[in-house]
Formats: sequence, structure tokens, C-alpha cells
Amino acid sequence: PKKQTTYSNRGMTLEEYLNETNEYYRSKGVACVHKKPTPVQIVHVEYPRRSAAVIKEAYFKQASTTDYNGVYKGKYIDFEAKETRNKTSFPLQNFHVHQIEHMKEIIHHDGIAFVIIKFTTLDEVYLLEAVHLLHFWKRYEHGGRKSITKAELEEVGHPIKLGYQPRIPYLNILDTLYFS
Amino acid sequence: PKKQTTYSNRGMTLEEYLNETNEYYRSKGVACVHKKPTPVQIVHVEYPRRSAAVIKEAYFKQASTTDYNGVYKGKYIDFEAKETRNKTSFPLQNFHVHQIEHMKEIIHHDGIAFVIIKFTTLDEVYLLEAVHLLHFWKRYEHGGRKSITKAELEEVGHPIKLGYQPRIPYLNILDTLYFS
Ligand SMILES: [Mg+2]
Ligand SMILES: [Mg+2]
Repeated sequence: PKKQTTYSNRGMTLEEYLNETNEYYRSKGVACVHKKPTPVQIVHVEYPRRSAAVIKEAYFKQASTTDYNGVYKGKYIDFEAKETRNKTSFPLQNFHVHQIEHMKEIIHHDGIAFVIIKFTTLDEVYLLEAVHLLHFWKRYEHGGRKSITKAELEEVGHPIKLGYQPRIPYLNILDTLYFS
Repeated sequence: PKKQTTYSNRGMTLEEYLNETNEYYRSKGVACVHKKPTPVQIVHVEYPRRSAAVIKEAYFKQASTTDYNGVYKGKYIDFEAKETRNKTSFPLQNFHVHQIEHMKEIIHHDGIAFVIIKFTTLDEVYLLEAVHLLHFWKRYEHGGRKSITKAELEEVGHPIKLGYQPRIPYLNILDTLYFS
């Protein structure tokens, strides 16, 4: 893939923006949503005298769930955050089968599952409900396109207007969709 | 503290029992609850050719939340699991201030927060709703006892009858308390 100009990447990553957003929501008592820690398989730990245990050998494990979960107005919310440097579509290979299965489960249990997708070079962010993601995933599994076109995202997803506080006010979208 | 006889500890830890329980609930489509990964501060990673990245230096971080969360019947559930070898009381020092603050937040957002406490030497398990834990914590902060007596737990907590599948059927208690 062609190298893009990078000035939009000198800023924060989507994850950093979302962490800041969630911290804002928490501090205001609006919602309690956390990023899950990166799962790590710990193989060897040393316990030096008088100082903290040091992990000397460990490996990254595949996450079995999504990035973020928490509670908003009593409901369970769960989402994955993804960024792409593409400008016209979002590649589905960005998801692992585990994450897709996890989102199916959340829907089954009546939780609120979605994805937040950022087009980094366009500085545009969309919220896509998991039910639509699953539709595109199924199309892909049945031999269809390996991506969601930007036009499709504009049709069934919801643009999130970026702000200052919070940076990515995704709960506004959930208010419209689930709490009004 | 006096060393206890250990035959009840030859078995599984509370965490292992709960992981098995949650796996059972997931496989039956009853609830989707996961243990959060242990948070780790990664300092140095090596990327050997042709093999997986190896974390060579990392440290355990204090968890800012509780052990488990997930969704049951649309509601957000969140709990901490603790075991003690004591027989007559449960020491509150087992909790970190972060965990207490987290449980307060969950209650504020109308989620279901609780603790699962196991007395390992007695093989008894109790579910204690966070609202009661907060009461005992407040008593402690105001100079009162540093523990919850077993009698108190019996009074305001809920014994969980251990089983085979699932091992620790804690959702039965939530059904009685919140869904009936
Ligand atoms: Mg992600
Ligand atoms: Mg614990």
C-alpha cells in the first residue's frame, strides 16, 4: 500500500482519543467504560529482593473479546475500535473471528455492541452497530467483498462529530439509537 | 498467620472455578462474562526473526477495576472474586481503594456490582452485593472493624450452593435479586 502523508498521525491514535473520551465520561459520571488490558501469556517472572517482580518472558495473546466495555444507563456496552489509512473502504480483515463471535454473543444477550471506525487520513469517525458489521462479515464469508465501502458506512453507520471534550462523543449516537 | 491444612487447596482456585463457570454460561448462551486480563506495563519487547515478539521486561500494574464483567439479560454485571483462609471473618484489606471506587461507579450507573467471597478452608462461597460491601468499607474507614464477620456475611450475603455444572452458579442469586 502506498505511503500516505502523515500529518494526521502526528496526533493521537484512536485508542488514545477513546481513552481520553472514556476518562471524560467517567469523571462526569456519565458512563463507566474501560479499555481491557492487552492479554499477555506470562512465562517467567523474577522476584528481586526489595523491588518489584519483573516479568522476564511473556508473549502477546490473541484477545478473545473486543477492546472496550462498560456500563451506560444500566446497559452493557461493548465495542471495538479500528483505524484505517484507506480512504474509500474499511477492510474486514481488521477483525478477528473471535471478535465477530463475541459481538454476536453480546447481541444475543441484549447488550449494545458496535465498532468505532476511524479513517485516519480523512479524520472521519463512524459508529457502526454490530448488527450491520455482521451483515458485511456474512457477505464476505459468502464470497463477497472483503471490505465495507465508505458509501455503505455512510448509509448504515453514524458519523461521530469530533469534539474537544469529549473528543469522540459516541454516547450521543447511542442516546439517539437506544435511549430516546 | 498459622499455616492451615491444605487439602482443600489441592483443588482449583476460586478464579479457576469462576472461569469454568463463565465458560459454562457462555457455552449455554446464558451470559457472557469474562475475566479481565492482568494489567501489565510493558517496557521492552524483542522481535526475533521468524518468531513471535517476546516481552523481555514488564511489570505488574495495579488493576483499576474488578476481575470480571459482562452482560446478563441486557444488564451490565461486574464483580470481584476473593478468597480467604480465615474461618470467622473476611479481611477488608483484600480490597484496593480503586476496586471500591469502581464498584461505587457501577452502582451509580445502575449496573449490578458484587463480590464473590470464598472461605477456602470451609469450602463456602458467598455473593455479597456491592452496596453491602460499601457499608462495611465505610465502617472500616470510620475506625470500625477491618473485616466483615462471617455472621454478617451470612446475614446480608447470599450463600452460593456449589455444583458441578456450573461450579459456582452465581447467576441463580442474581435471578432472585434482580430478575424476578
Ligand atoms: Mg482495536
Ligand atoms: Mg480477585
